[in-house]
Amino acid sequence: MTKTPDRTLRIGLAGLGNVGAGVYKNLLKNHALLRERTGADLVVTKIAVRDPKRKRDVEVPPAQLTTDWRELVDDPEIDVIVELIGGVDGAFELISAALRAGKAVVTGNKAVLAERGKALIELSERTNAPLYCEAAVAGGIPIIKAVKEALVGNRIESIHGIINGTSNYILTRMTRAGIAFPEALAEAQAKGYAEADPALDVNGWDAGHKAIILAWLSYGRWLRPEEVSVIGIEDISLEDVAFAGELGYEIKLLGVVRQEQATKRIEVRVAPALVPKAHILASVHGVFNAVTVRGDVVGETLFYGSGAGQDATSSAVIGDLADAAQNLANAVGTTGFVPHGEYGEALPLDETVSGYYLRLSVADKPGVLAQIASITGAAGIGILSVIQPEPEQPSEHVPLVLLLHDAKYGDVQHALRAILALAAVQENHTLLRVETLGQS
Amino acid sequence: MTKTPDRTLRIGLAGLGNVGAGVYKNLLKNHALLRERTGADLVVTKIAVRDPKRKRDVEVPPAQLTTDWRELVDDPEIDVIVELIGGVDGAFELISAALRAGKAVVTGNKAVLAERGKALIELSERTNAPLYCEAAVAGGIPIIKAVKEALVGNRIESIHGIINGTSNYILTRMTRAGIAFPEALAEAQAKGYAEADPALDVNGWDAGHKAIILAWLSYGRWLRPEEVSVIGIEDISLEDVAFAGELGYEIKLLGVVRQEQATKRIEVRVAPALVPKAHILASVHGVFNAVTVRGDVVGETLFYGSGAGQDATSSAVIGDLADAAQNLANAVGTTGFVPHGEYGEALPLDETVSGYYLRLSVADKPGVLAQIASITGAAGIGILSVIQPEPEQPSEHVPLVLLLHDAKYGDVQHALRAILALAAVQENHTLLRVETLGQS
Repeated sequence: MTKTPDRTLRIGLAGLGNVGAGVYKNLLKNHALLRERTGADLVVTKIAVRDPKRKRDVEVPPAQLTTDWRELVDDPEIDVIVELIGGVDGAFELISAALRAGKAVVTGNKAVLAERGKALIELSERTNAPLYCEAAVAGGIPIIKAVKEALVGNRIESIHGIINGTSNYILTRMTRAGIAFPEALAEAQAKGYAEADPALDVNGWDAGHKAIILAWLSYGRWLRPEEVSVIGIEDISLEDVAFAGELGYEIKLLGVVRQEQATKRIEVRVAPALVPKAHILASVHGVFNAVTVRGDVVGETLFYGSGAGQDATSSAVIGDLADAAQNLANAVGTTGFVPHGEYGEALPLDETVSGYYLRLSVADKPGVLAQIASITGAAGIGILSVIQPEPEQPSEHVPLVLLLHDAKYGDVQHALRAILALAAVQENHTLLRVETLGQS
Repeated sequence: MTKTPDRTLRIGLAGLGNVGAGVYKNLLKNHALLRERTGADLVVTKIAVRDPKRKRDVEVPPAQLTTDWRELVDDPEIDVIVELIGGVDGAFELISAALRAGKAVVTGNKAVLAERGKALIELSERTNAPLYCEAAVAGGIPIIKAVKEALVGNRIESIHGIINGTSNYILTRMTRAGIAFPEALAEAQAKGYAEADPALDVNGWDAGHKAIILAWLSYGRWLRPEEVSVIGIEDISLEDVAFAGELGYEIKLLGVVRQEQATKRIEVRVAPALVPKAHILASVHGVFNAVTVRGDVVGETLFYGSGAGQDATSSAVIGDLADAAQNLANAVGTTGFVPHGEYGEALPLDETVSGYYLRLSVADKPGVLAQIASITGAAGIGILSVIQPEPEQPSEHVPLVLLLHDAKYGDVQHALRAILALAAVQENHTLLRVETLGQS
């Protein structure tokens, strides 16, 4: 290849919080390297912030600051706008204005894509202004580029992702150190892994937004949030962590994106699930993220790295900026390959299939397991294994843990209601998915 | 983005062996999907084979077959040539002729790149004909695209790769099933994982070729094979596998690519090494490959998948063909970003630094450890831990296993010679690297 002629990419940065400061800092740090590799000078020329007086991680020339992002959109010198202001409505307005002005946009905002992605991508196609979003899913892991470019020759069969670092940190501490959920969450907050308000992390919706984006990349369809089932990790107990371990599994918060072969219907869900310890996903600990992608040609792949944090996320933003520089130089108004069709309807939750872990609290007397097995048997749901630990001291009720074969979620819920109606079975219980994943 | 206008990418396929047949088959299988995602019809129009009469996995129209690859190069209709004939000299001639004819080239041939990559890349730059090589390293894992595009904003600090599936299968079986090297190799051959002549797999050179390519991507320099230290797995014993396990490590054949911070010198080496069990690389089993890349911005990342096989490797070739289709449509004569500078000299082997595992056979009498420790102490090499297992039955010589702190390879070799000269120490011994990798 010939060396690309020198040129400048002028960047308008909207948002100078944690990730924005990382982008600014690392563009400066590796400026020469980026110039050598891309043939372009990547330069931030204007920055929109809410409060120009706020003390920040990075020093920026005060003359570059503005409080109005419209100045970035209206500046004819700016080639690309980086949206890192977060939230949905304001970000939607900003990105839309930038695309309408014909500017390339790089965003790390999973919420605005999950809720308004369809409109934004359609606008990007109409205006021929590319929209890049590597930083929106799994931080520094290049999962967007992997799915849409590297694996372009594959029909995506399934994606299983550990895509919320805070939840994975909490579950790791619960598993490794035997710390209960509230203590592990407090620890994550003290270490700066969780936000002051960690709701979106632990209730699963941060992962839910990312799963919606991955489903779009794989199947061309933007599922609406109400078509996605999302369960967080708040109710996971140390008891369940221990039983899962005894059965050879580790509990992980998984985002699952999958297509049913026969009907082409698409399943997107987030929930804590049991992963076999022998599978490489079970070896992903702490705040790290990892995403397995199964393609019909490549088989199983996995992509691992830091899913959050100033530096890791800025690596993804800078990768997108380099692509933008190259595409602008070549007058290419696209971000690479994307599905142009929509390959399926949403699969209703009741029809999704997986294995299950069911912990019940039952009367400590003979015959209870037979009653339960007759209900599951009648529903056509096979029992893979049973643990009934000896109680440490005599007790009226004891735990009973069942691993169930692959079955439809609706059928399991139906059987569960019948089981909970038994006189010998108490109301409190835990039902979790078991994801067998591929061989590895 | 606008839907790309329909167009055709005409492919000349040189080589219809295992991977070539996979490319042919999977291009047909996912033809409609590829057309929808890329806007291009990817069509194989001519195939060069050695023996047109040979029975093959795939049926191809006999009229498409030729025994002379020059027909592909000379065909003005053909846009891109896929080189899958293997070997060095013939492949070099073919790729050179194609690039001189101005055709894009996709190759999966690590040997020709490792030995003649510098000349081929220079020719590609001169003729403005792009050369793609995703399939040359780690099969279906998109490690080339990840390092050169997604992580373009990073200075690459280090790469540690399990990049030979046959060796990893053998080591996994030795570790998990307690089978010795010759039996594990025979098993790999019976399962079709190892070639009839498995020399390049088990002697480390298959991994060595891939490490040379990764070093070029990271640091812009083509190291000559004689600048690379390569040790295979033939001499790994079950005893060493067991001691490593006891110390908390698993033995893996690792390709290591690294830059010394202060001097910018580059280290490329392949050898069996001890990896901490807690690191995710230790969870990569069987024929799977995985590559960790540490960047100064992104931190640690890992890319995992099938490193060989018809389908997985053809996924990489097809990804390159899709990029070629897009670049041809946009009249872009490059394969994305590459280092244009050379960022360092080769680091001599004696100056490379790592931890070490040293197994000695010593006289079973007091004072021997003190003699050894005085030699390592004088050399400034710290001892991290010692195992001296009780012999099962009285024996004149017993094993003594030392874990040594990070030290220069030359210093360790020097101390080792002095240790082996002790009267109480026998000549037979094992010295392996210990790679501590990053936190994970």
